[in-house]
Formats: sequence, C-alpha cells, structure tokens
Amino acid sequence: MPGRHFLQIPGPTNVPDRVLRAMDMPTMDHRGSEFQALGKRVLSGIKVIFQTEKPVVIYPASGTGAWEAALVNTLSPGDLVLMYESGQFAALWKKLAEKLGLRTEFLSGDWRSAAKPDAISDRLKADTDHEIKAVCVVHNETSTGCVAPIAEIRRAIDEAGHPALFLVDTISSLGSIDYRHDEWGVDVTVGGSQKGLMLPPGLSFNALSDKALDAHEKSGLAKSYWDWAEMLLVNKNGFFPYTPATNLLYGLDTAIEMLLDEGLAKVFDRHARHGEATRRAVRAWGLDVLCEEESQHSGSLTAVLMPDGQDADQFRKVVLDHFNMSLGAGLGKVAGKVFRIGHLGDFNDLMLLGTLGGVEMGLAIAGVPHTPGGVRAAMDFLSGQRRAGGDAKVAAA
Amino acid sequence: MPGRHFLQIPGPTNVPDRVLRAMDMPTMDHRGSEFQALGKRVLSGIKVIFQTEKPVVIYPASGTGAWEAALVNTLSPGDLVLMYESGQFAALWKKLAEKLGLRTEFLSGDWRSAAKPDAISDRLKADTDHEIKAVCVVHNETSTGCVAPIAEIRRAIDEAGHPALFLVDTISSLGSIDYRHDEWGVDVTVGGSQKGLMLPPGLSFNALSDKALDAHEKSGLAKSYWDWAEMLLVNKNGFFPYTPATNLLYGLDTAIEMLLDEGLAKVFDRHARHGEATRRAVRAWGLDVLCEEESQHSGSLTAVLMPDGQDADQFRKVVLDHFNMSLGAGLGKVAGKVFRIGHLGDFNDLMLLGTLGGVEMGLAIAGVPHTPGGVRAAMDFLSGQRRAGGDAKVAAA
Amino acid sequence: MPGRHFLQIPGPTNVPDRVLRAMDMPTMDHRGSEFQALGKRVLSGIKVIFQTEKPVVIYPASGTGAWEAALVNTLSPGDLVLMYESGQFAALWKKLAEKLGLRTEFLSGDWRSAAKPDAISDRLKADTDHEIKAVCVVHNETSTGCVAPIAEIRRAIDEAGHPALFLVDTISSLGSIDYRHDEWGVDVTVGGSQKGLMLPPGLSFNALSDKALDAHEKSGLAKSYWDWAEMLLVNKNGFFPYTPATNLLYGLDTAIEMLLDEGLAKVFDRHARHGEATRRAVRAWGLDVLCEEESQHSGSLTAVLMPDGQDADQFRKVVLDHFNMSLGAGLGKVAGKVFRIGHLGDFNDLMLLGTLGGVEMGLAIAGVPHTPGGVRAAMDFLSGQRRAGGDAKVAAA
Amino acid sequence: MPGRHFLQIPGPTNVPDRVLRAMDMPTMDHRGSEFQALGKRVLSGIKVIFQTEKPVVIYPASGTGAWEAALVNTLSPGDLVLMYESGQFAALWKKLAEKLGLRTEFLSGDWRSAAKPDAISDRLKADTDHEIKAVCVVHNETSTGCVAPIAEIRRAIDEAGHPALFLVDTISSLGSIDYRHDEWGVDVTVGGSQKGLMLPPGLSFNALSDKALDAHEKSGLAKSYWDWAEMLLVNKNGFFPYTPATNLLYGLDTAIEMLLDEGLAKVFDRHARHGEATRRAVRAWGLDVLCEEESQHSGSLTAVLMPDGQDADQFRKVVLDHFNMSLGAGLGKVAGKVFRIGHLGDFNDLMLLGTLGGVEMGLAIAGVPHTPGGVRAAMDFLSGQRRAGGDAKVAAA
Repeated sequence: MPGRHFLQIPGPTNVPDRVLRAMDMPTMDHRGSEFQALGKRVLSGIKVIFQTEKPVVIYPASGTGAWEAALVNTLSPGDLVLMYESGQFAALWKKLAEKLGLRTEFLSGDWRSAAKPDAISDRLKADTDHEIKAVCVVHNETSTGCVAPIAEIRRAIDEAGHPALFLVDTISSLGSIDYRHDEWGVDVTVGGSQKGLMLPPGLSFNALSDKALDAHEKSGLAKSYWDWAEMLLVNKNGFFPYTPATNLLYGLDTAIEMLLDEGLAKVFDRHARHGEATRRAVRAWGLDVLCEEESQHSGSLTAVLMPDGQDADQFRKVVLDHFNMSLGAGLGKVAGKVFRIGHLGDFNDLMLLGTLGGVEMGLAIAGVPHTPGGVRAAMDFLSGQRRAGGDAKVAAA
Repeated sequence: MPGRHFLQIPGPTNVPDRVLRAMDMPTMDHRGSEFQALGKRVLSGIKVIFQTEKPVVIYPASGTGAWEAALVNTLSPGDLVLMYESGQFAALWKKLAEKLGLRTEFLSGDWRSAAKPDAISDRLKADTDHEIKAVCVVHNETSTGCVAPIAEIRRAIDEAGHPALFLVDTISSLGSIDYRHDEWGVDVTVGGSQKGLMLPPGLSFNALSDKALDAHEKSGLAKSYWDWAEMLLVNKNGFFPYTPATNLLYGLDTAIEMLLDEGLAKVFDRHARHGEATRRAVRAWGLDVLCEEESQHSGSLTAVLMPDGQDADQFRKVVLDHFNMSLGAGLGKVAGKVFRIGHLGDFNDLMLLGTLGGVEMGLAIAGVPHTPGGVRAAMDFLSGQRRAGGDAKVAAA
Repeated sequence: MPGRHFLQIPGPTNVPDRVLRAMDMPTMDHRGSEFQALGKRVLSGIKVIFQTEKPVVIYPASGTGAWEAALVNTLSPGDLVLMYESGQFAALWKKLAEKLGLRTEFLSGDWRSAAKPDAISDRLKADTDHEIKAVCVVHNETSTGCVAPIAEIRRAIDEAGHPALFLVDTISSLGSIDYRHDEWGVDVTVGGSQKGLMLPPGLSFNALSDKALDAHEKSGLAKSYWDWAEMLLVNKNGFFPYTPATNLLYGLDTAIEMLLDEGLAKVFDRHARHGEATRRAVRAWGLDVLCEEESQHSGSLTAVLMPDGQDADQFRKVVLDHFNMSLGAGLGKVAGKVFRIGHLGDFNDLMLLGTLGGVEMGLAIAGVPHTPGGVRAAMDFLSGQRRAGGDAKVAAA
Repeated sequence: MPGRHFLQIPGPTNVPDRVLRAMDMPTMDHRGSEFQALGKRVLSGIKVIFQTEKPVVIYPASGTGAWEAALVNTLSPGDLVLMYESGQFAALWKKLAEKLGLRTEFLSGDWRSAAKPDAISDRLKADTDHEIKAVCVVHNETSTGCVAPIAEIRRAIDEAGHPALFLVDTISSLGSIDYRHDEWGVDVTVGGSQKGLMLPPGLSFNALSDKALDAHEKSGLAKSYWDWAEMLLVNKNGFFPYTPATNLLYGLDTAIEMLLDEGLAKVFDRHARHGEATRRAVRAWGLDVLCEEESQHSGSLTAVLMPDGQDADQFRKVVLDHFNMSLGAGLGKVAGKVFRIGHLGDFNDLMLLGTLGGVEMGLAIAGVPHTPGGVRAAMDFLSGQRRAGGDAKVAAA
C-alpha cells in the first residue's frame, strides 16, 4: 500500500529516521574503548529520562523482562506482593509474579480509572505484620489510558507507615508523560524502549533506589540474566557483563539526544496536547473515552469505547484495510469493546490529524453510529492553542 | 521538530523507505556484469513508465538537464521553437531554449489553464514555410496545476499538417498522471526522478521517437554530455558512456518495481482522487483553485489562490513554523498570490488529511479569511468513495 | 580512522549490509497480519539452520538468556548438572547454573581440547542413581577454538544408558560449523544471533526435543520470560507472547535467506577453509594454535598462544591502534596469553588476508618473536585450493 | 558471494557507511531554510578541499559534465585548445571538446608519464598570435597512474608569457593527492564526487579563478545547465538555480567533514603510502608499473603492465570470480595489457593487504608468470614505516 503506514498502536511507536539510521551501523566490539564511551553515555543519559541520579540497568530484553527483573532482584519465594487491577498490563504483571513463585493480592479496579491511593493505603494499614513486601503499580495503563498518581501513592504508602517496596511500570509513559523516579520515591521503575523512547523493541530498564539495592542483598529469588549485581559492577566502566544489544544502544544514544534536545517538559506537553485533542475528537463523535477520571487521562494513548453492539476489532480491520493504519485492540476485559489510539513517540499535529481522520472515516465506512466533526474539534483545539501561544515558538511542542 | 516533516511541495516528494534503503548500498563497478544486469533492468522498466517501446535515455542530471537534452539533440542554432505560456516552467524552458541559441515564440496563456490545441493549430497552419521546428508543451504545469491535453495537441499538429517535432515536459506528471509517449505521438518526452518516480533529484530522462532520432542526425546544436548517440549505443548492453549515478539507479530500480506492483492505472487513480479531495477542501474553505478548467485539474498538485490582500508566502511560513509542513510557493506571475499543495508520489489518504488539516489550521492561525470545513469535505469524499467501492479492495487506491 | 574497521573478534561479527538495511525499516504492529507472515517465516527458517524439525524458541535476549532458558525450562532447584570445562564459556554457563539454584559438577579440561566423550560416559556410568539430570556441553568453545564431538557425546550418553538431558551451546558455531540438532539427538540447543547468523546481538534461541518438552512439564525452576509453554502456543500462529524484537527479526529473516542462498554446506566449507588458512599462517609464524586436537579445530575462530613473556593484550592494542582491527582477548585461564582471530560470519578470502596481514604486521611492530610468512602460507593454501577446484565455481566458498 | 566486495577500481570508490547513511534521509525542500544552511555549508566546505577561496560550482552531474562545463563557460566556437595526451581521459576530454565545436591540438604522450611542462611551454611560445585559448591537463591520469606537475606547468605557461586559460581535471585526485587550485594558479579545476570524495557518482565540480570568470563574460559557446552565472548568483544564498541532487549533497556534507576531521595532509600521506606499498608489491612480483616517472606515481591508483602474452582482462575476471574483487581495466591504447589497482578513498592498510593478496593469488590461479612476495613487500613497507613512526599516532594515516 502506498504512502507511510500509520502505526497508531500505543507502542511500538514510530521510530525516527535518525534513530533507525543510527542503528544501521556495523556492530562494534563490545569490549573496546569505542563501545565503552557509548556505554557510559547511554548509562548516564538514561538517568535523565527517568529523572533519577541512581543507577539504571539496561537489559537486552523486552519490557516483560524488566518486569521480571524488578521482582527477582528484590523479592523471595512466597513473598506477598500487592498489585492493583488497573487493566490488562497489571493483570499480566500479576500473572508473571505468580509464575515466579510470589503470592499476589490484587486490589480490584474498574478498568476505567487508575490505581487508587486510598485503597492501597487502607490495605497497607491493615497489614500490621508487614507481610506485604512490595506494592506494584502501572503508571500509564496501556490497556485503558489511565495514569496513576504515583506521587500520591508514595504518600499513601508513607502515611501507612509501611516498609513495602514501591515498584512502578512506566513502559508506556517513559519519555511521554512526566515521571520522576527520585522525587516520587519509587524503588524500582520498569521501562521499555519501544514507546516514548522511540526505539524498536529489544531494550528494557530498571531504575533503582537505595532501598531496592538493599532488598537485592536479601532477595531469595533465583536470578542470573536479570541480576543487578554484576550489571552495576561492570556498568561502572561503561561495559556490560554479557553481550549487550549493541545496535539498539546506538539507537538509544540518539533517542536520548533527541528527547533532551526537545526538552522533557516540551515532550510531555506535546503528548498532553495530543491527548486532549484526541479526547475532543472522541467526544465530538459522541463516543466515550474509556478513562473516566479527568485528572488521569494519558498523553500516550486514548482508549475509545465502541457504541453497544459494535465490534471494535471489525472496526480496526476496516481502518487497516482502507487506510493503512494500525490501531490498538481492546485487551482483556474490554476486548472487542474498545479500540486504542496511540499518540506517543515521534509524533506531531499533522500526524495526529491524519490519525483522527482515519478513525472518523473508518467510523463512517464501518457504519458505526457517530457524529462527524471529531477532526474539526481537534483542529479547533490545536490551532486555537497555537493562536493563543501567539507565535511559532510553540511549534516544537 | 518532532514527528515527520510533511513535504507537500510538488516535488521533490516523499521518498519511500524501500527506495532510500535501496540507494543505501555500496556503489558497484559500473563496468561489471552486476551493473549490467541493473542497467538492462532499469532501461527496460523505465519504458513501461513512459508507456513507450522506444528507447529512454537516463541522465545523471536534474530535470533541467533533460530539458536541455531534448533541444540540443533535435535542433540547430537559430531554429524556431513554438512554446506555450502555461506557467512558470514553460517560461523557464523558453529561457533555456534561448540561451542555447534557439529562437522561440511564446503563445500567451493565462496561467489558469493549460496549452490550448486550437492556438497551437492556428499558429502552425500559419507557418506555411515550416519555419517552426518544434512545439514544446508542459504536460503538468507545476506552477499552476493544469494538465495539458497532449493527445489533442498531437491531433492539432497533425491536422495542421505540420512537420514540427512535438516535445513534452512530464517532469511533474510522470508516474502520477496518465501519460502515453507512444500512443500520443510525442517525439521527446522529458522526465525527472524526484516527483512521481519517488526518488531524490539527480536523474532525468528523454523518451524518444523514431522521428526524434532522425532529427538527431541533422541537429546542429553542439552536444556531448547530452548526446543521445553514444548513450543509445552503449545502453544496448546495459552500460552508460560515462559514469552513471549508480546509487540513484538502485533507487530507480526499486521505484519502478513499486509503481508496477501497485499498477500504473491504480497509481493514476490514487493521484486523481487526492486531487479531487483537495479541490473539495479548497472550495469548502471558500478559496479558488488556480486552474480554471475542470478537465485539466492535476492529480499531482493543487495551486490555491489566496484571498485578495493575503500574502501566500507569509501563510506558508506560518504553516512551516507551526506544523512542520513545506508547501509550494507561487512562482513567476503568481508569486505571493498562490500556494501549492503537492499530493504526489508515495502518498495516501491519511497523509492527505494531515496535509489538508495543516492548511486549514494554518489559515486560522494566519488570520486568512476562510470557512472551516475543508478537511471535512475531503473526508466525506474519500470515505464516501470507499463506501461506494463496497470493500477494502480499493484500499490500495 | 579511515576505511572499514576489521571486527575480527569471534563475534559479534560483520553484519552484512543487506541485514542492516533490512533492520533499518519502521517497526510494525507485532499483532498484525504482516508481522504474522514474518513470524511464521523466521520460525520456520530458523529450524533449517538448526537442522531440526522441532520447534525453535526465539528470545529477545542475548545468548546468555538462552543459556538460562535451557536450564529453567527443563530442571528443578537442586538438580545436578554435569558440565565439562572446555573453557571460559563452559565456566560461565556453570556459574549461571549455580546462580539459578542448580548443583553442578565440572569435568576438568585443559582448555586446549573440547569435551571428551569418554570422560562424560565414565561419569554417567558411575551415576547409577541417575542423579545427574542434564549434561551441558559447549559445541564450539569460543575461548579456545576447540569443537566438541557432539554426535560422539550423544553416543557416549546412550552407551551409558543414562537418561540425562543433553544440552548444547552453539552460540559461536551456529551458521558457521556443521551442527545437527535432530540427527545428533540434542535436547536443547542454545544459539545466538551475533555470530554465524550475522546479526547484531539481541536475539537468542532454544531448539528443543520431545524429551526436552517432557522435562519442561516437570521442571520446577521458576520461569516466566523464558517459559517455552506460552511461546510455543503463540508461535503456532506466527506471534509471540510479549513484544518481540521486531527489527532484529527483520534482520533474521534476511540472514536466513542469505545463508540458505549460499547453502549451509558451502557456508560450513568456507569457514573450515578460513580456519585452515589461519592455522597455516599461525604455524608459519612459529606460533602455537591453542587447540591441540587436529580434529577439533574451529571454523569460527583461531586462538593463538603468544610466545612466553609476551602480553597478548598489549599486542592486541598495537593491532587496534595501528590497523583499526579488533582481535579477541584471551579469557579466563588464558587471559593475556592468548589472542583470538575471529573468521566467521559474512567473511571471505580477501577479508581474511587483510586480517592475517594485520596480525603479521602487528607482531613485527610489537616486537613479538615470529617468523614472517604467515600471510604467504595462507595465500598458498587459498589459491592452491582454488586452482585445484579448477574453476570459479568454488568462488562462493 | 559472502563478505564484502573489494571495489578496487580507481573509482567509484568505497563509500563510507557514514556517507551512505547521511544520504539515506528524506529529501528536503530545496527552497527552504534548512536546505539553505546545508547549501552554504557544502559550498563553503568544498572550497577547502580544492584549496581555493574562489567559488566552486557544484553540478548534479557526472564528472564528464564538469569537463563540458569548464569548456562551455570559458570558450567560443572554433577556439583552439591545447591538450596533452597523458592517457585515455585526456583523449576523452579532447573528443568532448571537439564535439562542442572547439578545435584541439594534442601534444603526444607515451601513456607512461604525465603532461610535460617543457612541451607545453614550447608550444605556447610558438603560438605568438595567442590562438590557443586554453591549456587542458589531467592532473591524475586515471588510465595510467601518472600525476602531472601542475605547479610546473603553471610556471611553464607563465614563462611562455601566454594568456591561455589553464584548465585541470582532478577527478581522480581531488581529496586523494595534494592539489592547490589557488596556489597553482589554475583557472578551472574539474572534480567529481565518486573518487577521493568518497561519494557515489552524481555530483561534479568546477573551481574557478577570476580570470575564468572574465573569460565567462566573453565566451560564446551556448550554455544553460552548465552556465556559471546563475549558479554563482543563487549560490550566494546557499541555493541552486534548478533542483540540486539533494541527497548527494547530504553525503557531500558528511564527506567533507570526514576529510577535514582526518586532515587533508594526512589524507594525502595515506594515499601516497598505499601507492608506495602497492608499487613495492608489483615490483616484487616482477611486474612493471605503467608509470615510469618516479616523481609522478599516483596515490590513487597503480596501473600494472601484464607480462607479454598475458591478457589483463582475463586476469581481472579470474580475480573477480574467485575473490569478489573488481580491478580496473586497461583503457584505450593499453586495453588488455594493463590492469589498475585503485587504492583511494575510504581505505586503510588492511584493505590494501586484502587487495594485494587478491592480486597475488589471482596471478597464481591465472597462471601469470610472477614471483610471489608482493604482499610481503607491502607488509614490510607498511609495518616498517609504522615502526619508524614510533607509536600509534601514525595509525590514522
């Protein structure tokens, strides 16, 4: 099909040409000094992205691996982990924890809002024996488009006076939505390469805290590939204990440079703007945004509820076949009922209009009841905001 | 600026990744057998694009070079050439002819329609001494978006019983708008790489006729680089008389494959559809399309007249600064009064909506009087047409 | 430094342009039908490379991950594993096994020969209680350049009538040295992308047997990321249970195509030839090849012993600084005493001569006692063999 | 065929990955400000390569086009041009001049030495009427590997007190062999992209002098594409009068950066060293270098005479078929008798040893009488020189 594919799933995202070209270079000796300089650069740069001064571990693995790493490095067999059912990815992380021999408790959620600080606080207060060893929360639930209030959850844990570790998944928010590992007191933050970092999949991350490092000393789960200890030791010199994914690291180096050139604040604003424009379109169509909490809307993606009786997957197929655009499927409890529009990564206003135009035309072709005018609403917002900005300085946003 | 640049000038156009990657390969020995196979393939494939069975000469040069080549290979110093003032590119070709020592006569045009068969016929009939040696017409006038009726002009020449050569510039139509070198009896067709062929600039073409080859024998203009004779001799074996632009030929090989895979008829339909959608948007905005002849609208580009008192270049700057989109400037007589939307090459519906969205928002931001609703009109057309198509088979269009 | 770097470590290897360019493409939706076709193609093609008809699992991970996967999918905490100290990589695999909670027994080796079938057979015969659950052997010991006789070890296990699983590491032999997963009765074969497969690091493999799948049912080690079960289930449709390393899979697709186009037999012959040429050079220099068994010489790499009192790492530095070539370091017990010449992957005769020339000149510059003439010996062998071949048909070898 | 092709013709040369990747980017608007910055950068940088402060014109054309441009911009029909038969490229330039309507006089040469200052001086002194309007000399004769003494020829012209223009072809020396447009008083220097500039073919150059610009005013040959006037006018702002070869300019930008990062002096030394090493190899084989003047040996290429009765083209075919290496053919008067080894561009010591190794093995396989030992002689020279250099600082050379 002619023209560019519109990859509007909530990740993997559009990889910028600069990043792809950076990866398109001969693999170098991962024990040599040229690699060492690269290793030091990315190990340092990735900290800025996580807003941390603590070490960040980089794995040659998918995000799922970094989920596993966060657990095996800090916990012991049979430990109880408190999780919150924010959506499908929370459910998958829970399943993974159980496969590793952990016990889990799942605070039930409605899939239309993020993890609730109160619920977590209540549960921790009741855990007077401190049986719970870790609280696991998904920052940006990729299946629902709700963003959890991580700083508030931190306060909730502190108010409960509970010593549990705080583990947060930022796979679909890192580099797209403001996230502060240090300031928010997170012990392990899990990230991946293929979303806001604008890379292909294949790298994932654990950002650590001192408390996490202490927990590592006592953790009893078996580990080797994921073990932080040797990683951190060898990372000090810019190297890795086993063969790293060299060419993805070339790309990471460039992606970090691009994000910092734009400025993280501008990156976050840009994503928030595109989230707002998308929601205005959805509402103009007369459809519902899955996330019900106004303060929790995601800048990375928007999940849209289909009208009753309409099949979201059939709609997505119409859009793909006619307009060469991939939208995200509804997952788990909302499978078939929801489609997701990814608007993260290397993205701009006109790409968003193409995306929303494809959705609006797809609704028409698929015969989904809706009111035309979504694209118009998005344009009014985007251009209105820029007019208010007064000049082209906002253009980079 | 984040996301992809929207390069919506009427060429150079968006180069597909496959073509860029094909060019991103080591240069090979242009005297070796591997090159020979490539040379034969592109020399054969390019004929299909021109819809000819005669030889096509490929120059390592811009389209301007192929303009020059068409003249120096067929004409002699002082020869009179009849040209038609369809717009800026006709004017530039005329200027070039004069620099080469030809005399020119320019049938005046209004820059809102293409070359008129009647005017040409009348002039030729008056030329009873056959002083006119060639008639030069621009097929798709890139400055106005009007497409000349080449088959009718051929008939007009024939009806006049005039022996003049017929030279046609298809630089911005080749591979985008139906063009038939043999069927329409053109003697030399001039083409370039950077428009419908979806390549970077740097290659240009002369498609020939037997009559053109005869004229070459007698032509008195000095030539060496552009000389067809040695080219055609050496091309027979797949080689070139001097070093060809090897890596651009890699790209040409892939571009031809892509065009033929899609099918020329579908390629032309796709461009026509995007032209129609664009004009509907323009009219919905209350603006005028520069081309006034309904039968002559271009599938490659649409030139739009600004309302009185509005500066097109200022508007283009607003669009570039805010939305990272390049639009074409008004040229020559319509400089400052017109902007041009390129919708040719590797392009699809959603890219067009992003493009039109950028124009509509730009009009709002720049304070250009207009009625919103252009994007909506384009969407109604595009989705309506697809609904009428009944299924996804039209998706490639 | 000008010109191409000579990456003559025993992996990562030279990645062909075709593979790099294949990876340099937009990431696609890993849940869509285009990906599905890719997934089926690589999952099928990789079996041919392992010479198996059983499933091969593809991980987004380094080879070290596939080592871990082979163990956690088949064994239980406290299980005893018999390993053979063929060199550094056997030692690392043993260390990994212990970190996972396995007990290991290490048959001692001399680092100048591969795993010995007799020693393994003897040990298994003594294990009348069948306490040993798996025998782990490195096929091509990357630290020594000795190739273990896998078929003979299989026979030794069978003769001992022992039910242990047979796990083999082919990270540096796969796609370079003949290896037959099915015919040789291996239960789990471990492979990686960055050696004979000519890819960047970031993918690794487990080829399975029915017996391995049975063992998986009963294995008690915790696993999730590495778990074969969900992988195999989802792989049936060409998909993966979590986000795969999409762009590396593009490269794998192309690399498999290249290997099969050349033909595995020719690939193995080519590597063997380059091993032989390298050893002739080493001997002409008056130096010793580390591997002492004539039948065990590797086609992937040659480890060379430095004369007494000469520092191999200093020598490697001279070669890198003067000739822009990376050689492999001596590892573990032979650190500083050995350098390694990688001659695997996308490699040919002239690249080998450049490599050997760099070594010979490096020896001269570093003042290492040696007899010049190694390159000459290699040339005599290579050209002599081709002369004997009688024509250019051997050129691809 | 596996491994990298050895492209050892005297151009096109090996294009560095950085340059290919730079070209592998979307084509930009050649009328926009981003292009303008690029245009200014390359127009300024290319002057450093020509060692001039005068303007350099960049054509989207092969080197042959720049030959033509040098003539049509400075001369008038029927003008007499003095040329020197240094070899095939001088002969081709002469043929081209004649096709353009110039009269030529060819000082005969022996194809084993470069243009002789005395002969030129004598002829000019005899031309008391100043009928000769230009002296054309090839700096590095690509067909013979002899380098003309340009500064001496300048002095010869001056001593003759003759006002002829001095035009020099540096297509295969620019960026490889020291060349000083201003210091040596050349009026028009002709260059191309595909040799020392390490780019694919498709760009060529005219460096000018004030005298050349004066001659342009009076020149009577017809010109448009090649006309300096509009070029220089528009270049002032970083733009070009017609569509430039945008992506080749991206590559040029990177290539200039690479050459200047290495330093022109080091670039020239590196080429000279490789020329010397090659000649030592040739002599060790008992073969003759075509160029007989010790002071004129080229750093770009070495032409080698085959022993009597041996067919150079058959030998080249053996080398290509067996070793995947392209060597240059003998051209014109030495066709079949000579093969040429290109050692220019992005090249280093180990690539040279692979090249020479391929020649030495090819001689053996083809049964060409020779003494083995050429590679050894080259290694002795290269390593001896580095030892003398005392440390790795010479590594970049």
